[in-house]
Amino acid sequence: MNPRPNTGNCSLHWFDQRLDHFTTLNATYKQRYFVYDKFWKRQADGHKEDGPIFFYCGNEADVTLYVNSTGLMWENAQALGALLVFAEHRYFGHSIPFGDQYKDHLQYLTHDQALADYALVLRSLQQQHRVDVPVIAFGGSYGGMLAAWFRIKYPATIRGAIAASAPIFANSIGYAEQFQGADYWQVVTHDASPEAGAAPNCIPNVRATWPLMFAKANSSRGLADLSALFQTCTPLHTRDDVEALALTLMMAWDTMAMGNFPFPSSYLTEGKATLPSFPVRAACEHLAPPFSLPNESTALLVAMKDATDIFTNATRDVACTVVHQEYDGIWDYMWCSQLLAQESYFDSNGVTDMFWPRNITFDTIATDCRAKWGVTPDPDWIRTAYGPADVLLASTSNIVFSNGGLDPWRAGGVLATSNPKITVVDIPEGAHHLDLMFSDPRDPASVTQARRTEIQQIRTWLHRDA
Amino acid sequence: MNPRPNTGNCSLHWFDQRLDHFTTLNATYKQRYFVYDKFWKRQADGHKEDGPIFFYCGNEADVTLYVNSTGLMWENAQALGALLVFAEHRYFGHSIPFGDQYKDHLQYLTHDQALADYALVLRSLQQQHRVDVPVIAFGGSYGGMLAAWFRIKYPATIRGAIAASAPIFANSIGYAEQFQGADYWQVVTHDASPEAGAAPNCIPNVRATWPLMFAKANSSRGLADLSALFQTCTPLHTRDDVEALALTLMMAWDTMAMGNFPFPSSYLTEGKATLPSFPVRAACEHLAPPFSLPNESTALLVAMKDATDIFTNATRDVACTVVHQEYDGIWDYMWCSQLLAQESYFDSNGVTDMFWPRNITFDTIATDCRAKWGVTPDPDWIRTAYGPADVLLASTSNIVFSNGGLDPWRAGGVLATSNPKITVVDIPEGAHHLDLMFSDPRDPASVTQARRTEIQQIRTWLHRDA
Repeated sequence: MNPRPNTGNCSLHWFDQRLDHFTTLNATYKQRYFVYDKFWKRQADGHKEDGPIFFYCGNEADVTLYVNSTGLMWENAQALGALLVFAEHRYFGHSIPFGDQYKDHLQYLTHDQALADYALVLRSLQQQHRVDVPVIAFGGSYGGMLAAWFRIKYPATIRGAIAASAPIFANSIGYAEQFQGADYWQVVTHDASPEAGAAPNCIPNVRATWPLMFAKANSSRGLADLSALFQTCTPLHTRDDVEALALTLMMAWDTMAMGNFPFPSSYLTEGKATLPSFPVRAACEHLAPPFSLPNESTALLVAMKDATDIFTNATRDVACTVVHQEYDGIWDYMWCSQLLAQESYFDSNGVTDMFWPRNITFDTIATDCRAKWGVTPDPDWIRTAYGPADVLLASTSNIVFSNGGLDPWRAGGVLATSNPKITVVDIPEGAHHLDLMFSDPRDPASVTQARRTEIQQIRTWLHRDA
Repeated sequence: MNPRPNTGNCSLHWFDQRLDHFTTLNATYKQRYFVYDKFWKRQADGHKEDGPIFFYCGNEADVTLYVNSTGLMWENAQALGALLVFAEHRYFGHSIPFGDQYKDHLQYLTHDQALADYALVLRSLQQQHRVDVPVIAFGGSYGGMLAAWFRIKYPATIRGAIAASAPIFANSIGYAEQFQGADYWQVVTHDASPEAGAAPNCIPNVRATWPLMFAKANSSRGLADLSALFQTCTPLHTRDDVEALALTLMMAWDTMAMGNFPFPSSYLTEGKATLPSFPVRAACEHLAPPFSLPNESTALLVAMKDATDIFTNATRDVACTVVHQEYDGIWDYMWCSQLLAQESYFDSNGVTDMFWPRNITFDTIATDCRAKWGVTPDPDWIRTAYGPADVLLASTSNIVFSNGGLDPWRAGGVLATSNPKITVVDIPEGAHHLDLMFSDPRDPASVTQARRTEIQQIRTWLHRDA
């Protein structure tokens, strides 16, 4: 389809969704979903059988982002005669229980409730169309976690799942053997390496920045320098402020690594600005020269600002650098309740990664979460609900787990399994769920192959019984 | 073990259980469970590997009933080196959230919460003993439904499940193709047939009773007669009262059919009184003679009272017959919320069963439930959560579904499947989960074989990976 299909091609629906599926509370909210039915093959139209449903498990953004970006669904629906459905996650986009008061009623914001929401939307669709067709769940990132978990918890509802860049193990407490925070930052660092196409000096230069910054925290002169160099919105006063600034920069590298696509993309900014193709390479260009320290300290810091501005000032109209940021809005609540992944709390070590040693204890997380949201995270529920990694993978089926070599979330992803009914797909040149995106002439061969494998798996699932 | 093992052999534990697993509410209650560890093989004691856990999924009674009755677990734990755990279902026995005020806080009484409770108890046990051993879930009746659902929803926690007499389809709305209420009463009627060892006149005599009773509802003389004959606690005044009395009798036949064991048992009375062996046969003895109507109407009604008194007055100290009964206490709330099975609301037709035509609409159920508990049943959640029967069975594994030929709940049970990883066991001479009981010299060969199959399946599951 050209131009690319989007919400404008879809019909918009509102579902009276149960607020709490697991108690007898009888309240509802309006959940939004989009449907595209022009590709759907129906027996009534002379087709041999009714086509399947491709269901996007909305994650932590306005669902229109996923409607407009999930090319994998759009580009394969016709061949498979599928109905496309994109459901919005509760408490995101326009699917907000309690309207303006939603922040006073966040207790219903859990992934378990979201999965049950999706099961009800699907049940309603099947009933409404008087069909009982297989459903393939799709999702990227947290949406991919939902897709995999959906298959695990509702195997009779979901025939199979494409879980793209789904870090189901990115929980260093519940899955300590699979994941530690530093694993994440190691992949971000890989993005800045020559192997990933970045300037050879990039990593050493980034690594050299942090001691310079922290040294400046020791004097008011240094703090004033840093404030000026990074054009902070408020002057830096303390070591904490400097750490917060450093974290802002780290998170910029993080986002650029996730969005390290071979073409310009506004996915990671949710459409607010377009990042260049391979943004980490672009950032690293600013850090390509050798900087002779301490003489060129200021130049190095300026280069770091220019590098991170690729993301931080992607809109080109950011007047100053916010130091103490709230990361990810309401998503942070899901981190603070069930420890769904939140990289701003992941440890780094400065050795296997290009950042500085950060050691964040569960106590710190719990204290922060109580202060921010009034909840104490339950570090064990996800592990209890889904089990240890090996048994989780051995006891399910019909899931593709794909991971990109440039995507830091691969650190918490499923990279191997001995279960023949689970498919692991590696996309060495891919960033965060590149495989879900619309195909592009600049795509590496590995993502084209990954998509082919995914569609082949879907065909296999559709021709099997369950 | 002789005498039979019981709670006295076990250690008693209280678990600080989360009240709501699916929201961020941070309240807890004390959940009770019993453990027997003398059979548990441990590597530390020189065994090749740590033994499994046999876990009873407590259902709607004080858990001590299940500890003291589940011979299948006790009799096979030693050979399999298993740790025995019996967990109590929330809101039953002594595991009551909110203590005396529990009736004001019933919204947390759902089977989904109960399963999550069990997952947490098991996670805690595994951590406490530093093991990660396979768990076999056991349960009978609703406990069997829980065992099967536990395997389906927590496949990484539960290696396999013995779901004895588990009527997972006994929901005529969600599983209309599998189950209608009259199917249930047809099996009760089978218990009263010569094929099941009962007096040949029993069924026709029972069937002849109802028109007599309802005819008496038309006159005050008739109502007075009936009140006297059945020694009702309050005089019958209306047709409704007579229907309520008839329902009391029907429910007595029901309980005797469930408890139609080949030996005396107090299981169905939760230990309050002992029913004779084959209580339906005993009841039918009172209805063995031919009664010539209308002359012997009174004699027939007296015989019906004597027959049902086998259950209704099993304690021999019941002074009068309660007409308007509340069936099953708090269990009724679970019927009224998720339509978990409640036979007092199952239709009968008087043709395929020995009762009278009753047609109970969902509207009636909903009205009753709102009046009794303030909740409207959700007729679709169970079906949405577990899927249509064929897909449910095709998409899971490692479950034995056993059903007794004398057990009315077989009507809502799993009687066949083409999935080789699901085992269906028929016990033609068995009543309600006879296979779970302690073995007895009077056991029919079919239950001995059923138990053998179950243990064999457990061994297979334990030697497979997941």
